[in-house]
Amino acid sequence: MYKILENIKSPNDIRKLTNEELNQISDEIRRFLIEKVSKTGGHLASNLGVVELTLGLYKNFNFDFDKVIWDVGHQSYVHKILTGRMSSFDTLRKYNGLSGFPKRCESKYDFFETGHSSTSISAALGMARARDLLKQDHHVIAVIGDGALTGGMALEALNDVGYNKTRLIIILNDNQMSISKNVGGISKYLSKVRVDPSYNKIKNEVNEALNHSNFGKNVASSLSKIKDSIKQLVVPSMLFEEMGVKYLGPVDGHNIREFNEVLSLAKQVEGPVIIHTVTQKGRGYNYAESNPKKFHGVGPFDYDSGEIVSKGGDNYSKAFGNAMLKLASENDKLVAITAAMPDGTGLIDFLKKYPKRLFDVGIAEQHATTLAAGMARAGLKPVFAVYSTFLQRAYDQVLHDVCIQKLPVTFAIDRAGIVGEDGETHQGIFDISYLNMIPNMTIVAPKCMEEIEYLLRFALDYNNPIAIRYPRGGDYNIEGLSPIKKFEKGKWETILKNGDIAIIAIGRMLQNSYKASKLLNDIGVETTVINASFIKPLDETMLKDLAKNYKLIITVEDNVIKGGFGSSVLSYVNTLEKKCKVVNLGYKDEFIPHGDVNILYKLCKLDPEGIKEQVLNLL
Amino acid sequence: MYKILENIKSPNDIRKLTNEELNQISDEIRRFLIEKVSKTGGHLASNLGVVELTLGLYKNFNFDFDKVIWDVGHQSYVHKILTGRMSSFDTLRKYNGLSGFPKRCESKYDFFETGHSSTSISAALGMARARDLLKQDHHVIAVIGDGALTGGMALEALNDVGYNKTRLIIILNDNQMSISKNVGGISKYLSKVRVDPSYNKIKNEVNEALNHSNFGKNVASSLSKIKDSIKQLVVPSMLFEEMGVKYLGPVDGHNIREFNEVLSLAKQVEGPVIIHTVTQKGRGYNYAESNPKKFHGVGPFDYDSGEIVSKGGDNYSKAFGNAMLKLASENDKLVAITAAMPDGTGLIDFLKKYPKRLFDVGIAEQHATTLAAGMARAGLKPVFAVYSTFLQRAYDQVLHDVCIQKLPVTFAIDRAGIVGEDGETHQGIFDISYLNMIPNMTIVAPKCMEEIEYLLRFALDYNNPIAIRYPRGGDYNIEGLSPIKKFEKGKWETILKNGDIAIIAIGRMLQNSYKASKLLNDIGVETTVINASFIKPLDETMLKDLAKNYKLIITVEDNVIKGGFGSSVLSYVNTLEKKCKVVNLGYKDEFIPHGDVNILYKLCKLDPEGIKEQVLNLL
Repeated sequence: MYKILENIKSPNDIRKLTNEELNQISDEIRRFLIEKVSKTGGHLASNLGVVELTLGLYKNFNFDFDKVIWDVGHQSYVHKILTGRMSSFDTLRKYNGLSGFPKRCESKYDFFETGHSSTSISAALGMARARDLLKQDHHVIAVIGDGALTGGMALEALNDVGYNKTRLIIILNDNQMSISKNVGGISKYLSKVRVDPSYNKIKNEVNEALNHSNFGKNVASSLSKIKDSIKQLVVPSMLFEEMGVKYLGPVDGHNIREFNEVLSLAKQVEGPVIIHTVTQKGRGYNYAESNPKKFHGVGPFDYDSGEIVSKGGDNYSKAFGNAMLKLASENDKLVAITAAMPDGTGLIDFLKKYPKRLFDVGIAEQHATTLAAGMARAGLKPVFAVYSTFLQRAYDQVLHDVCIQKLPVTFAIDRAGIVGEDGETHQGIFDISYLNMIPNMTIVAPKCMEEIEYLLRFALDYNNPIAIRYPRGGDYNIEGLSPIKKFEKGKWETILKNGDIAIIAIGRMLQNSYKASKLLNDIGVETTVINASFIKPLDETMLKDLAKNYKLIITVEDNVIKGGFGSSVLSYVNTLEKKCKVVNLGYKDEFIPHGDVNILYKLCKLDPEGIKEQVLNLL
Repeated sequence: MYKILENIKSPNDIRKLTNEELNQISDEIRRFLIEKVSKTGGHLASNLGVVELTLGLYKNFNFDFDKVIWDVGHQSYVHKILTGRMSSFDTLRKYNGLSGFPKRCESKYDFFETGHSSTSISAALGMARARDLLKQDHHVIAVIGDGALTGGMALEALNDVGYNKTRLIIILNDNQMSISKNVGGISKYLSKVRVDPSYNKIKNEVNEALNHSNFGKNVASSLSKIKDSIKQLVVPSMLFEEMGVKYLGPVDGHNIREFNEVLSLAKQVEGPVIIHTVTQKGRGYNYAESNPKKFHGVGPFDYDSGEIVSKGGDNYSKAFGNAMLKLASENDKLVAITAAMPDGTGLIDFLKKYPKRLFDVGIAEQHATTLAAGMARAGLKPVFAVYSTFLQRAYDQVLHDVCIQKLPVTFAIDRAGIVGEDGETHQGIFDISYLNMIPNMTIVAPKCMEEIEYLLRFALDYNNPIAIRYPRGGDYNIEGLSPIKKFEKGKWETILKNGDIAIIAIGRMLQNSYKASKLLNDIGVETTVINASFIKPLDETMLKDLAKNYKLIITVEDNVIKGGFGSSVLSYVNTLEKKCKVVNLGYKDEFIPHGDVNILYKLCKLDPEGIKEQVLNLL
């Protein structure tokens, strides 16, 4: 079925293949990818886009010595296939299965782990400098998408690369997308490079460009051989060249022959070189070609029809998007900001209805945050919708630009808590801790989807920095719960009042705790359940009361315990005259691997059964 | 003495002045600045560099409506002088006195607060977009140095500005320095723009450039009037233009007439425009001109000789630098990284001796951190020397690139704790909290300068992520203390063993606690004093013992209590069977203003007297 592919025993076997064989193996890889991902779900479109690119790398380099860093890393499936992991694809992104990102524990060819965007040039530059100091001689290659190039740290790295002239190959995989369509001046510039006919006229300047001083002396001879076959490959691009990086491109990233040629040229450049290669997201699967966004990170789907198997029900992102639409119609000053994720954060309808009030800044969380600060200072009510794990990038800006000045910026923190299949790099389990310590910050969590609207209403009137955190997916155990419609600062809600054990929980953990409380009740253990809508500030009045009248307070949060909600509760109760025992449930001081959300909850004992068990163990 | 300056009653008075009067007032402002800062200390060189630039702004804009954002903000002294704060300069950077940065509480003309680098374009863009949505019509101006342009968030912002064509004026104040000499491809590029004769030939292309489509229609007429007087002012610069931002420059930032002309031109551009102005740091004070680094942030000095009044004694930065020199000679793999601060972090001698082993990446903490991760992965032992407050920028990279992979990167965190005169934006009071919650991170603190070397030795052998945090300045109360020379992971040191109260303290707080303990002893209160060299992991064995045998544990740290060291101790003790009372001393959940370090310690009750008092109150 995969004739050539199955004969690849070692990645080095790729080097022996002819261009024609490489084209054949491309087809096989695509079939394999579509077939496997249609069953497991995963990042399909980006991997279909880098089939020839990856083959080109294995054709031209020897990764027993050379190193390649995959920016973001979800486009490393082809690389995984070629490095002995073909048989593991049925377990892709499952607990204990193959990761969707490079992982050092899986293979020596996964030399550096990635997950968040825009890190590859920095890491690769570090390795290249180490190579030079240690007097080694291999190549170091960063593969980075044009979307990731809007991230500030990639630009910081480019600035450093161009200055110090370290030998390094950067492959700019330009597919005109991040997850959504790309934005930004650089992106616009790249489009211009791709289509401007003046860039296609420069063929006869190739010679001159190749004689550029930072080319090695061996180049001249090899040049004459390949020159004629290079069509418009070598066009000096001012943007990169002015930053001091040699530019080669644009080259068709699906044309194996051309791509191989430009790679063999790049290997001979003595300083830093950027290869601008144009690829198509979803290439070779027509449903993905025509809708790459849908097939970016996708659940299981039908190979033949391209239909997603399960469309999923309501979720917090949608609830947030709907609430934003409603509030925008009532309040002219409400604006939304996204860092390249209008879809993921639920803002697509908002974008359609209020295109001038949604600002997509690209993958640029730092800028997004301070942009929001500027807007808030000038009278708008900005809401920055962002995943918990990506807001980590803007920790300083939240503290320094928003909170010192107490500016009314609302952070709508999606994917808070365990997100599941994307694993360590994407779990949103730190946000409470990194926000909790920042003075002037308020943190709230809806206990059900419906409350998002009312929390947003609270936020818009609040006139202070505030973060609303909510999980991936929808509601779990809300039967019997009803939403709060009018929130009051620092006021908690008593859901159940029984016995002398109080469980104080936040967000989805309130749902799980409520269910746990029912399970406990079934076996005769009575508990009080409290919804801590306000993670910061605490409801000190209620806590005083609980500490005085209860035997035990148990806090439950989907965040690391260190510096989290429970830690605040413990600290406060510890200062009281009359106090009771406090126990914090949450995540331990370790990273949480990939896997199904429910499996991970179970593993961490934060599903209803797990909470029940932990409570019982305390009695 | 300041004839014209003293007649400036309102900033709007500047608009009435002629170019000649502006030149005279420049001289007066310079004299005033040098005289005042020679007494108080402060940021002199950068302010001397922006005298004409600031006057130009007040000549051409009306800041009752228009807004100016000063990037970093320590160059806002001239702006402060012109906006009614001349008489407050004797209190500059003193507790309750004039801040060295823009502060909204001081003046309505300080529209947005700054402190960390590279935030101004984002904030200004936010305001400009708010203006457009709110159908207002004023100008928004960001003044940003070329050093700050290496910060990723400034580049993220530029990318957004160029794409969306929001009307905005960016003044690039190019003085070829951040604190030290600038690095990076962009900086090199700017130098080229400044000196390349080809850029000076383009005068006759001015016309064409001015007819560029994003100029307003009123420009044509005003153009003919000013065109002849503009010398090489309008040269399209590919780097910025390719990102979609109109470029004007380079212009001499000390030539009032030229600068006014380019400003009046910029006002008429309909989209974003960047004015590249070349200035000289320290301009007009020859000691500062010839040594701008020395006069960047300077203590009191003698006006006539330029001699610093007090050179200061040993300090932690020097001790770190010396230790690095020593270790570098023993270990080839040791390399150092700095984000534009080889001086401040004590690495100047290292740079001289090992120029190839120190990497100055510019103001780019994110890149610096992941660069270190790459180096560590490839076999080097990188030490990133960085101020506590600036490492906030790299929180995500520490977590995502270093700690998930457990890479042996050492963070040498200088200026941890209160730093004093720079105030809210610069206090290093969050690092323990933001590192403590990150799995796989180890945090240590020397109790005296001598220990830095031995902690670095420990770090180099440790093969895991580690942060060594130490304060600004030198040692305070170390009489009777002797350094540990061999550190053991997670092991604390008992300094004094007396009574049933245990004070556990870190770093400089150990010094203050030790002194406090002596003061307590003088009045008959016995205390045990423990040096928690390891902030993370805790010495659980010792804590168990203390919790069992003591009445009270008091933790003392120069960090916010939330999520800090004491919070870890409390959480751990709380899990024990046999426990005692725990009280956490440290900073409350609020920002700490500027002022002398010792005044602030006193205020926060963390000087020896304050600790003594707090302990007594607990008995």
